[in-house]
Amino acid sequence: MKLYQQQLSLPAKRRGFHLITTEILRAMPQLAGIQAGICQVFIQHTSASLTINENADPTVRVDFETWFNKAVPENDPDFLHNDEGPDDMPAHLKASILGTQVLIPVRNGRLALGTWQGIYLCEHRDHGGSRNILITAWGE
Amino acid sequence: MKLYQQQLSLPAKRRGFHLITTEILRAMPQLAGIQAGICQVFIQHTSASLTINENADPTVRVDFETWFNKAVPENDPDFLHNDEGPDDMPAHLKASILGTQVLIPVRNGRLALGTWQGIYLCEHRDHGGSRNILITAWGE
Amino acid sequence: MKLYQQQLSLPAKRRGFHLITTEILRAMPQLAGIQAGICQVFIQHTSASLTINENADPTVRVDFETWFNKAVPENDPDFLHNDEGPDDMPAHLKASILGTQVLIPVRNGRLALGTWQGIYLCEHRDHGGSRNILITAWGE
Repeated sequence: MKLYQQQLSLPAKRRGFHLITTEILRAMPQLAGIQAGICQVFIQHTSASLTINENADPTVRVDFETWFNKAVPENDPDFLHNDEGPDDMPAHLKASILGTQVLIPVRNGRLALGTWQGIYLCEHRDHGGSRNILITAWGE
Repeated sequence: MKLYQQQLSLPAKRRGFHLITTEILRAMPQLAGIQAGICQVFIQHTSASLTINENADPTVRVDFETWFNKAVPENDPDFLHNDEGPDDMPAHLKASILGTQVLIPVRNGRLALGTWQGIYLCEHRDHGGSRNILITAWGE
Repeated sequence: MKLYQQQLSLPAKRRGFHLITTEILRAMPQLAGIQAGICQVFIQHTSASLTINENADPTVRVDFETWFNKAVPENDPDFLHNDEGPDDMPAHLKASILGTQVLIPVRNGRLALGTWQGIYLCEHRDHGGSRNILITAWGE
């Protein structure tokens, strides 16, 4: 079994949900040599996250931002951790609801995503800066 | 280290939460030959998801549907993505909250689930149709 | 490729969010021998969960408990599964929102966590008792 690991630094993106499937594929060309295996994409932050969802209609990604802002409101007077601004504590919560990683099967040298699946970078801060990603793929 | 990969098509299920542990085990008999390892179950869709939860009392699964319908309401006037019906955008959101995959240790030829743990297929659409699953297991 | 698996029983913790990174590292000293790989931490329960979030300011963990208690309220009259007390069904829901496992890359013999990332045990019951963890690490 082979295992590959690659670091990737994504430039700063505005708050919201962004398709990054192309960037991930470009950073891990070794996927082409894996007939059956797995690929993990991991984000090394606590106020941004990764998820898999619809890759076609961009309004889906807008609606993600709309719903998450209602579900995890800013300026909750019960929050104690608010030194870094109103977007900080909600960002930590959204990051754990969605998760720090996606894990995708590899089949015939490609990510075995469904037709409509893409990888989202979920930027929960107003000014999150660049984000560090670590990609690990293994298989035969 | 050995690695096995199996496709599984699950027939259409009604909207809600369904135990599928038995179907997963039946589709991957090679687990019996893994002394220590991992098994991933991945769903290739963006409006259905997978999670691990209580395998005994069926009312837990009913309460999951109840809570998720309140937390991610249909017909939110702020949603932009609503061409496919009121259950569509909530289905995408529920799918990302719960996730597209479960990842379970394998020990002595069996999934090392806790006593009360089972695998749920979470069908978030009113008429979701059949669902494609990809199972990957590896270990020694 | 090497694969290691370790069981770990964590003593009972009070309801809330607890940093357990140190306990995980202590239970899996074999990480030091993995140059590139992955480590999974899996919890064998349905009313406690695992996530990755901020490892520094303890008020983040207090705010997690605050938000989750509002988002998944106890004593919802629509819940059917309430024989084990008002904290029971919310615990199942919180466990699936956060998930039963975390999966972390390994690099140069260490967990490749970001600077501010730590592993949380999320205890959703008032009296959850000890919790069984299974750690699996593999790589080269």
